[in-house]
Amino acid sequence: MRAAVLHGGRITLEDVAEPVPAPGLVLAAPLACGVCGSDLHARDHAPHLCDLLHRAGFRGFMDPAQPVVMGHEFCAELLEPAAGLPRGARVVSQPFLVDAQGVALIGFSNRYNGAFAERMVLQEDALLGVPDHVPTDIAALTEPLAVAVHAVAEAGVDERCVFAVHGCGPVGLFVIARLRALGLGPVLAVDLVASRRAMAERMGADAVLSPDGDAVTRWWAAQGLHAGLSDSVARGTGGRRAVIFECVGRPGMLAALAEGAPIGATIAVAGVCMQSDAIEPALLIQKSIQLRFVFAYSADEFRAAFDMIVADPAALAPMVTGAVTIAAVDTAFAALTAGGEQIKMMVRPA
Amino acid sequence: MRAAVLHGGRITLEDVAEPVPAPGLVLAAPLACGVCGSDLHARDHAPHLCDLLHRAGFRGFMDPAQPVVMGHEFCAELLEPAAGLPRGARVVSQPFLVDAQGVALIGFSNRYNGAFAERMVLQEDALLGVPDHVPTDIAALTEPLAVAVHAVAEAGVDERCVFAVHGCGPVGLFVIARLRALGLGPVLAVDLVASRRAMAERMGADAVLSPDGDAVTRWWAAQGLHAGLSDSVARGTGGRRAVIFECVGRPGMLAALAEGAPIGATIAVAGVCMQSDAIEPALLIQKSIQLRFVFAYSADEFRAAFDMIVADPAALAPMVTGAVTIAAVDTAFAALTAGGEQIKMMVRPA
Repeated sequence: MRAAVLHGGRITLEDVAEPVPAPGLVLAAPLACGVCGSDLHARDHAPHLCDLLHRAGFRGFMDPAQPVVMGHEFCAELLEPAAGLPRGARVVSQPFLVDAQGVALIGFSNRYNGAFAERMVLQEDALLGVPDHVPTDIAALTEPLAVAVHAVAEAGVDERCVFAVHGCGPVGLFVIARLRALGLGPVLAVDLVASRRAMAERMGADAVLSPDGDAVTRWWAAQGLHAGLSDSVARGTGGRRAVIFECVGRPGMLAALAEGAPIGATIAVAGVCMQSDAIEPALLIQKSIQLRFVFAYSADEFRAAFDMIVADPAALAPMVTGAVTIAAVDTAFAALTAGGEQIKMMVRPA
Repeated sequence: MRAAVLHGGRITLEDVAEPVPAPGLVLAAPLACGVCGSDLHARDHAPHLCDLLHRAGFRGFMDPAQPVVMGHEFCAELLEPAAGLPRGARVVSQPFLVDAQGVALIGFSNRYNGAFAERMVLQEDALLGVPDHVPTDIAALTEPLAVAVHAVAEAGVDERCVFAVHGCGPVGLFVIARLRALGLGPVLAVDLVASRRAMAERMGADAVLSPDGDAVTRWWAAQGLHAGLSDSVARGTGGRRAVIFECVGRPGMLAALAEGAPIGATIAVAGVCMQSDAIEPALLIQKSIQLRFVFAYSADEFRAAFDMIVADPAALAPMVTGAVTIAAVDTAFAALTAGGEQIKMMVRPA
């Protein structure tokens, strides 16, 4: 079969061996698969990513010296009946497989290919059947939306929280969409790029700002949440609490956010900064800041993301800004690396 | 009256003006006052501390160019009846005063002297009367114990948590005592110094270790909590959760703790690291670490610390390792700066 193969930092269309489903696994044909920031990173910095995951004690990650077929944000068509679903049914699933060797990450594994391929195997008991009214591209957003569902859950949010989302790439935009789907707000979206701020408004942000100057701090103050301890003590917070989502992942973001954050803010760190980063613990102590580093999601959170998409697939439709064939995966990577107005690009292997 | 005055980085015994209580304030004679790590820091790095607090938007901190009388961990004797207590009653209180200029920190204020003096003023509605069975030195531990009460509360602890306290200076030791008073555990105490590990055992630690080597990581694994993602997923946590208290406050501690911490650990940061510090956000994300920077305490937490002391004053008695007169405050500072076996030294101004 044909697949987009990552090897030595390059992605090329190649003929590879057909996947063979072991017991409990099922053969499927990917219909659409989003390109994730992790895919870009794995192409450009696989040894660094690999080292990091080894240090985190994760043994299921790919050997970057060997060929890998990426793609983990997929909607696929069953090529055989499974899980009570007929052949031809569209499905999504968490991109994990458990076999005798442990957990494998579909899309970052040397043992199982990801969805940038004509066929793949999925774990039968992880399948979710996609209803007819949900377009395939939107169903494929389940996985990145699950990341946002988890980030919002881990931030410990409730109706008294006031939100700022820094960075309006896919993760930040999905966080905004999730907050709105839960009826929470107000939500401020912050990004340097005007087109991303516009997309944040489409996802339901109540206000958008560029991070330049002190406009963000003034927005917080207008919500009754103060960056200064004396103001915070003197005026109180009226039971409100600041929750900030860091979805940029560049060095210096945490220090900058902590400096401008309201007293007692929770900062949920979803942007993956791969470099070492500097913070000033004493300042974070004086301001009683919490940094919650969030990763992946549970099966229940994946299901919650799926349910949110099934309930209102049109809400997320603007997120899909482009699509390519399996022969042009490298083109999609180049467009996303360049920045610009692409948010979520789909690879359509069929 | 006589007071130990900090000026230009030196502490000297001087004659200073008597404090005059405004309405709502009451005159008292400090009987005992502990020396805090913040006092050492204010002596040696006052401009840095001042800059930091200004950046945190706190306007009640001292001008380090002007003379200051420190001392905020006090037990004092009322020199006039107040709050339903007779003249001569022993009291403790939070070291804050609110006047027309805002919040003043007793002990770090140019407007109000701290307890390294023969007399001071206290806010009448903040007074707590000390029962006869509580020794004065132990009552003076209320304030630093309140810091630990707050740190434990902010860490979000419950009976499923497993604890490690890194750094067995006063803050770490009070955290251990607080955890045991709440019936929580097991508690591991980690310190480089054998005498501090011995004190941790006296405060109720179930195990003590030096941070050298991988003994701490092995202790976590023995509790069923793993530093590696694959082990953690494969074996589960049985509902247990790791809570780590960082009570050292040196650069590099956060990175080292994150690297060795069980997956999903909460690290409550109570040690005040004044320098910039480096972390690796991507590693903390992979491990789903929470960093909760904790500061000060509420009035309710101060009261909870007081109640804990009243319930069992003998439990904390080993913490008081030395005492000096008001003429020898600089000697106490030197002994504490030198490290060694001193934990909490009292200044007795009477």
